[in-house]
This record gives sequence, C-alpha cells and structure tokens, in this order.
Amino acid sequence: MSAPIAHGGGITGAAATFGGRPDDWLDLSTGINPCTVVLPDIPARAWHRLPDRHLIDEARRAARDHYDSGEILPLPVPGTQSVIQLLPRLIEDDRIAVTDERVAVTDKRIAVVSPTYGEYARAFTSAGFAVHAVDDLAAIGSEHRLTVVVNPNNPDGRVWPTDTLIALHDRMKAAGGLLVVDEAFGDTDPALSLASRAPQLSNLIIFRSFGKFFGLAGLRLGFAIARGDILARFEDWLGPWAVSGPALSIAGSLLRSDVSPIRGHIDERNAGLHAVLKGAGLQISGGTALFTLVTDARAGDIYTHLCRHHILVRKFDYAPDWLRFGLTPDPAADRRLGEALQRFER
Amino acid sequence: MSAPIAHGGGITGAAATFGGRPDDWLDLSTGINPCTVVLPDIPARAWHRLPDRHLIDEARRAARDHYDSGEILPLPVPGTQSVIQLLPRLIEDDRIAVTDERVAVTDKRIAVVSPTYGEYARAFTSAGFAVHAVDDLAAIGSEHRLTVVVNPNNPDGRVWPTDTLIALHDRMKAAGGLLVVDEAFGDTDPALSLASRAPQLSNLIIFRSFGKFFGLAGLRLGFAIARGDILARFEDWLGPWAVSGPALSIAGSLLRSDVSPIRGHIDERNAGLHAVLKGAGLQISGGTALFTLVTDARAGDIYTHLCRHHILVRKFDYAPDWLRFGLTPDPAADRRLGEALQRFER
Repeated sequence: MSAPIAHGGGITGAAATFGGRPDDWLDLSTGINPCTVVLPDIPARAWHRLPDRHLIDEARRAARDHYDSGEILPLPVPGTQSVIQLLPRLIEDDRIAVTDERVAVTDKRIAVVSPTYGEYARAFTSAGFAVHAVDDLAAIGSEHRLTVVVNPNNPDGRVWPTDTLIALHDRMKAAGGLLVVDEAFGDTDPALSLASRAPQLSNLIIFRSFGKFFGLAGLRLGFAIARGDILARFEDWLGPWAVSGPALSIAGSLLRSDVSPIRGHIDERNAGLHAVLKGAGLQISGGTALFTLVTDARAGDIYTHLCRHHILVRKFDYAPDWLRFGLTPDPAADRRLGEALQRFER
Repeated sequence: MSAPIAHGGGITGAAATFGGRPDDWLDLSTGINPCTVVLPDIPARAWHRLPDRHLIDEARRAARDHYDSGEILPLPVPGTQSVIQLLPRLIEDDRIAVTDERVAVTDKRIAVVSPTYGEYARAFTSAGFAVHAVDDLAAIGSEHRLTVVVNPNNPDGRVWPTDTLIALHDRMKAAGGLLVVDEAFGDTDPALSLASRAPQLSNLIIFRSFGKFFGLAGLRLGFAIARGDILARFEDWLGPWAVSGPALSIAGSLLRSDVSPIRGHIDERNAGLHAVLKGAGLQISGGTALFTLVTDARAGDIYTHLCRHHILVRKFDYAPDWLRFGLTPDPAADRRLGEALQRFER
C-alpha cells in the first residue's frame, strides 16, 4: 500500500488542527461545483431495489447524448477513482491487446503528463509499474504501455487541443499502447472533449466525472468511454450493481436537462473568486472554471493563515508556491475569503 | 470474463419476454426486504461534497455498535459484491500472510460451501483459481487457501453454529488459510453472527449486507469485518470515497435505530408468504426470514406459469426442482401470488 494522498475535502482533519466546527469551515479545497442543484425526484424503487437493467440503460443513453459519444454507451462507474484503480489490471490483461512485439510484455512503464491528479501515479506504483512523470507529450515513447493526460489538467488548467491528443493516441496505438484522457473538469468546455471522436479511436479511454460539474460529489458517479471490450472488462471487474440506484436515477434526469444555467452559475462564481484573488494581489497562474491556481512564494503561509480563519484551500507538496482555490458558493463567501486574505501579513 | 450470473432483479428482461410494464410485475426474485423503511433525512452536504472522514467514521461506529464487532470498526464498501471481487487479489498479496510452507504459493485452490451465492465461484474462477464446491465442512482441507461459508446460506437457508465455524476458522488458520463468512442474510437472526468473535479470530473475514434487511438494495452498501491489515488492503484497493455520501449518512442513522419493527414486519411478511405457498400445496424446503425455498419437480413449469402472470421468482440452473420466493410486500401481493398459483395446472 502506498501512502494515501491528501486530497481536498479533509475538513474534519483541518478542524481538528485549527479548531472550529467542520460545518462552519469554508471548504475551497476541492474542484466541485459548490452551487446546489435541485435534486430531481428519485423513485422509491431506485432506493429499495437492486439497480435494474432499465435504470442502468437509461443512464447510459442519457450519458451518450450528453457527452456526444456516438455509438459508445458510456459505462457508469462508482466514481472515476474506481476505474483508475483498475487500469493496471487492464493493461496486464492478456485479453486486451494493448501491446505488440515492439513492447516487451514484461515492460511495466507508463507515462503520466504531470504534475496532475495524484491517484494515477499511486495506482500504478502500487501495482509495481514504473511511472514516468513527463511534462511534455514529446517525452512519451514507444516504451510506455499507457499514457495519462488530464484535460483540462488539474491543478494548473493546462489544455491540450483535440488534434494533439488524437496524434498522441495514434502514436500510442502504433506502439500497441493505450491513451487515457481524464476529462473530469471537461464539462465547462465541451469543445475540448474527445468523446465524439472516441468511436474512431480504438486505443483511447475517456473518463468523465458526474459529481464535479453537477455539484454532487457525494453520489460517487463517473463514466468511462472506450471500445466495447475495454468497457466489458471494467464492468466485469466492478461486478454487478456497482453504481447506486439513486445515482443512476439522478444522472438519467440531470444529463438530459438544460445545463446552461449550471454553466452560467459556475462562470459567475468563478468571476467572483477571481475578483477576490486579484483584489488581494494574488497572481492567478492557471485553473479551470471550477478552480483557480495561484502561484505565490508565500503560499505555505497563506495556506496556514486561511486555516486559522477556517478556510481550507489545497496546497501541493511538489509545488510549495502553488495554492488551488475551489469556487466560493456565494458572494458572502467571497467576502469572507477576501477579508481573511486582507488580514494576511505581507 | 466468465459469463454473468442471472441474479434476481431482472424484471426488465422478464418483461421483455413475457410482456407487461416492468413496474407492474411482482418481483419476488430477490432476498431484499420489500417493506419500505422511512428514509432518514440526508444532509445536503452528503450529496454535494466528497464523503468526509467524519461521515465515514460515524457510519463505522454505528456499524460496530449494531454488529457488535468490539474493537473492529467495520469497513463500509459499495456492496459486498465489491469486496468479493477483491478476494482473489487479497490471497495473492504477499503482504497478507495467509499461507505458510504447508501450502505451496502456487496452489490456487479455494473451497466454497455449496450450493450458494454464485459470485464467489465466479470471482475466483475468473482470477484463475480452482474452486472446490464442497457440501460438507469436513471436505475442506489444508490445500484450500480460503473457504467461503454463507451463513445462513442462500438459497437453502442452511445454518452453521458459531462453534462449528470457529473450529473451521482455527483449522484454516493452522494451515495458513482464510475463512470468509458471508452474513448477508444474518440480520434477522443476530445470534448466528460471528461478528462479536471477530476480534479474536485473525483469519476470519465477515461480510455484512446493509441493503437486504433495511430494504435499501439500491444504496449499494455493505461492511467488511476483519483484522486491520486486511481491511486496510480492501480500503486501499477500493480507493478513496468508494461509498456514496447518502449511503453513509443513511447507514449512520438506521444502524442506530430500533430495528425490531423491521424484524417484526419481515416476520409478518414471511408468515404471509408461507401461508400462500402451503395453501398452494408447495413443499417448503428451506429459507431465511427474507426468502423461502420450495422444492418441486414442476419448478420449471411453475416458474414459467408465474412469469405469464408477471410474477418473477428465482430458479436455479444447478437445481431444476428449486424455486426461491422473496417476500411479498403486502397482503394484496400474497393474494395475487396465491391466485396465480391456484391457476397452475396440476
């Protein structure tokens, strides 16, 4: 077991150190939409019965139409984390032809375009793979059996154009490898998504997150988009009824709803956060609509200062001058953050 | 990938063959309590935020008190299915010392006391293990690295006394093996549970189902009770946030509630079902409070006859004279089942 990664959402731990009731903290440590969507009605049977084929199929069709994945019906999974954990097993499964004679089957090298979400490196390292953290797609070679690109990237918001990723896919495929594109933060900029191209890209796996954009991270729901035999393997390993009935029911409704008000609300909150950060003289160095990255030599001190004001943001061991700010839920929270930042001793 | 097992809950498929709207079918094909519990209030943050440590810890403490597992805090898992899938990986993990020199490390034999829930054999077969289906605990030998006992057993309701299972555990442990006791249907007879003994039984793993007894199978929630390093391995492989916030929140409430009304309701429904089956001249050959097994040479014909009346029960490929009836939700359903059975041509 490798050491667990400190993700956002650890309000309990922060409150234990800095005091305050967890409910009174302002949690800006995640990239989850903080604006409450109206939950659609959940039929009683979604709670009480095992998720039936009808419920699963309806969520898959809604996801296909929402993500525009053509003939591929996205596979619902209990959070993309659950399929990240399965990637090492996937590329070691000899029923999935991801390697050819140019890659020795004993070769356990994969590439992760970094820095990025830490669970990919953790899952592969834990399974005995050598993980190459590359910062440039040119560093990916035929020795890599799989490459992970998070697009847009977390935490810096770096984006890769569709054509660049298709060229990378073709290069991976020619060497018998797989390309994983994690579009967890892709909902606010659908033009970046490779989903509509997935039916023609046999060695591509796309992960989508449901909870971040819709502000329902507690649901544990994501989707995998890939060719049929890869999705069948994931489905087999996750076992029957991997996703809860309420999650499937809610997804079936919300993925068919008009999401433009949600996008509008996120953009409004993002503008509010940017105004606060700029007002405090902080330098915005990246981000997506759902989070903002600040680069500051005093990042560690700002982090601790905000904790003393019971505001949790995200810091990074590997980049001590970075802080990631999730969206504030409302203008009152903007003011609270702004006032706390004003009190920081410069 | 081995072929999927046809479990209960497949109303969509049955309706496609025999007609009718799925909602109009009477689903007696599962062992899930059909009586609706009142859902406790779910705080908004359980839906919207990643499940925080506080929510997880509270559910674990409630489960410890409910299952009486002493110093062991049961691990919440997204359905026991999710940890069944991990058992092959567990006994191949060289950090878990489950074998000693008396068992060759290349030996891939496990025992499943059978017939029983099919997913154990499927998970191990799929991982390259030889699964010995034994019908008697005496047939379990030192060559078996792991034994599975479902207690009470599904579908025949067979029970093993606590002392018998402890002796089996000690025998497995002496040979370096593990004992898995699946208590998915154990809630209606807590005296059968090994949970209170688990802290003293180092090579025991207990699985508990939350959804069956509470009638919330759609939630996808179960608990694993075992020594710390085994639970840590499961937790690591499932990854962070494996269980949804609403499931943790509901479990934290309901596991602390008075469950005697639920037991009473289940017993009442069980009596109603038994009266109908006996009234139809069927021979009850086993079961638990949550399902009843009937043995009848005409089982296949009865199954098809009931399907024509849009009532789904469970049949078994390996025992063509068995039918399993789940609980009817109310007296009206008793009458509907009774009338359909009366029309069966004898």
